[in-house]
Amino acid sequence: MKEKILTELRKAGDGYVSGTALCSLLGISRQAVWKNIAALKENGYQVESVASKGYRLLSEPDKMYGPDILSRIDKDCLCKQVESFECIDSTNTKVKQLAEAGAKEGLLVVAEEQTGGKGRRGRVWKSEPGIGIWMSLLLRPTLPTEQISGLTLLAALAIAGAVEKLCKLPCQIKWPNDVVVAKKKICGILTEMSTEENYIHYVVVGMGINANTLSFPDEIKETATSLFLQTGKKVDRAELTAMITQRLCAYYERFEKEGDLTSFIDEYNEKLANKEREVRIYHGMVEKCSKEDIETGVAKGIDKTGALLVEVDGQTKRVVSGEVSVRGLYGYV
Amino acid sequence: MKEKILTELRKAGDGYVSGTALCSLLGISRQAVWKNIAALKENGYQVESVASKGYRLLSEPDKMYGPDILSRIDKDCLCKQVESFECIDSTNTKVKQLAEAGAKEGLLVVAEEQTGGKGRRGRVWKSEPGIGIWMSLLLRPTLPTEQISGLTLLAALAIAGAVEKLCKLPCQIKWPNDVVVAKKKICGILTEMSTEENYIHYVVVGMGINANTLSFPDEIKETATSLFLQTGKKVDRAELTAMITQRLCAYYERFEKEGDLTSFIDEYNEKLANKEREVRIYHGMVEKCSKEDIETGVAKGIDKTGALLVEVDGQTKRVVSGEVSVRGLYGYV
Repeated sequence: MKEKILTELRKAGDGYVSGTALCSLLGISRQAVWKNIAALKENGYQVESVASKGYRLLSEPDKMYGPDILSRIDKDCLCKQVESFECIDSTNTKVKQLAEAGAKEGLLVVAEEQTGGKGRRGRVWKSEPGIGIWMSLLLRPTLPTEQISGLTLLAALAIAGAVEKLCKLPCQIKWPNDVVVAKKKICGILTEMSTEENYIHYVVVGMGINANTLSFPDEIKETATSLFLQTGKKVDRAELTAMITQRLCAYYERFEKEGDLTSFIDEYNEKLANKEREVRIYHGMVEKCSKEDIETGVAKGIDKTGALLVEVDGQTKRVVSGEVSVRGLYGYV
Repeated sequence: MKEKILTELRKAGDGYVSGTALCSLLGISRQAVWKNIAALKENGYQVESVASKGYRLLSEPDKMYGPDILSRIDKDCLCKQVESFECIDSTNTKVKQLAEAGAKEGLLVVAEEQTGGKGRRGRVWKSEPGIGIWMSLLLRPTLPTEQISGLTLLAALAIAGAVEKLCKLPCQIKWPNDVVVAKKKICGILTEMSTEENYIHYVVVGMGINANTLSFPDEIKETATSLFLQTGKKVDRAELTAMITQRLCAYYERFEKEGDLTSFIDEYNEKLANKEREVRIYHGMVEKCSKEDIETGVAKGIDKTGALLVEVDGQTKRVVSGEVSVRGLYGYV
C-alpha cells in the first residue's frame, strides 16, 4: 500500500493529494492512509499534511526502501514484492531462506548494508552502508540446470542497459558477467541455485553495484570504479534498482519462453568488451597459470548457450563460463 | 561424549564399568560421567548404577538418538556428527539450514517424525513417528554438478548392502535409485544441492526407509513394503542407520577420488532389477505417456556416468536419470 501512496504523491508533483482521494483511489480507510503516511515519514520521506488540502511530498531520502522501489516497477513486471533491510548478513542468503519458506519468484531483497556479502567462490564482497546497491532476485525457472549460467549473462545485460539509460554512461561487458565502465568493473553478480538433480527449486541472482562509492582501496582501485566516480553525480539507487529489476525480469521471461540465448546474442555481443580482439584464455586461476595453461585467440562473441567463441589457430573454440578466465592482452579488461 | 559412554557400557556386556574407569578412559570428571549417564537415562536407556561396582546397561530404547547412532559408526568415517530430532519439518531442510550456517560434510540428521517430509518434485513423503528411518547426510563434493546424480545411485547401493547384511533380505535396485525387496519399494531417496553455477556449495542426500511400518494404505501397498513386513522382525533402526551412513560415506570418498562410477558399475549392475530384461522407457510421466512416448528395449546396465544403457532395435541408448522412467513389462519393477 505504501508504494501506491508514494506513486500518488509523486503524480501530484508540487500539488496536494487529499486524504479522501487517496481513500477512494486505494480503497482504504482514512486511518490506513494516515498510518501508511506515518510509516513513510519514519523512513525519511518528508510529507506535508495540510488540513484543508491533503498530503504533499516534499522530499525523498537516499534510501533502499522496499515500497519505494516497488512503486517504480511496472505492474505487469514479474517482481511484485520488494523486501528491504537496513543491515543483513547477505541478500542472497535472505532470498534463499525466503525461497525455502515458499516465496514466489520475482521476490527482490535489497539492503543498505551487508555484513557477510559474498562474491564468487565464497570470496568476501565488501558492502558498506548507504552507498551501494545490494540486491537479490528470486527466480523459479523451468529451464534445465545447464541453461542457468545464461541468467548471469542476462543480469549483466540488464545492469549495463539500466546504467546506460539512467547515468548516460557507456557500458561494456567483460564476458561472462562483469559490467565495465572506462575499463573498470562496476558490479559483481553471484548466481546460486538449489536443485533436485536436474530439477530446479529456485535460482537467486545476486547483484552488487558500486553506485555512490567515493573511493576504493589501493588493491582494487585499478580494476574497480563506481557510477559516482564516473559521472561526478550521486545516482538514485532506488530508481536504478527498479530499472535493473524490470529489465532482468523481462529478459528472464523471454529467455524462459525461448529456451536459449539465441535472440540475445546480438545485443550481448554489441556490448562485449573484447569482441574481435585478441584475448588470453586462462585454464585455472589467472595468478597461478603457467605458459602451458594459457591460450591466445580472437574473441568472436557468445553462442546461444552463453559460451564465448574464441578463434584459436583458425579453429573456433567454445569457452564455457566457470572453467576459465578470459582477459584482453593488457590489464583487467 | 554420550556416544563414547554408550560404547563402553556395551563393551562391558552384562558386566559393570566403574565410574573411575569411565573417567580415565574418556578423560572427564565424575560429575561429567554422571551428567551424561543421566542424559542417556532421560532418552530411555536403562542404566543401573551400583555404588561399589559402577554402571551397567540394562536395555536400550528403539530410538533414533544421535549419540547412539554415532557410537556405532567407525571413528575413521567421514560422519563425525549426528543430530537427532523428535519431530522436525524435514531432515533435508534441517541439513540445508545447518549447511548454510557452515556445517561440515559428514553431518547426519535423523528424526523420529517429519511433518513435512518431501519426496521427489515436492511430492509429500509420509513419515509417521517411531517406525521409519528418516535420515539426511551433508556432503560437500568437489565434483562437477553433472556427476551428482551418481551419489543417488550410490545411496541406493549403500541401503541395499546394509539391508542385506542386517536383515538378510536380498535387495535389488530399480534404476536409478529405488531399493526393492520382493519387487516392492522399501525406500525413497531425495538428493538436493546448492550450487553457484557449476561450483557445488553442498549436496544433501535424504533417505527415507520403511523400516518397521506395519501396513501401507491401499493406493501404495502393491508397490511399497517395509523391512518388518518382509522379515516379521523389528529392525534395529539405529544400527541400520549407522551401517547405511558408513557405507555411503565410504562410497562417496571413493567416488570423489575416482571421479566417476567406473569401479561401481559391476557392483551396481549385479543388483539391477531388470538387467538383461525387457523394459519400457517412458518419456514423460508414466501415467500420461501415449504410445509414441514409450520405447521398448533390453536393460544392459549402467555406464560410468550412472546412465542406464538400453538396447533398442540393436542400438544402445543412454538413458539419463530425471528425464525418463524405466519399468519392466509387468508391474512396478
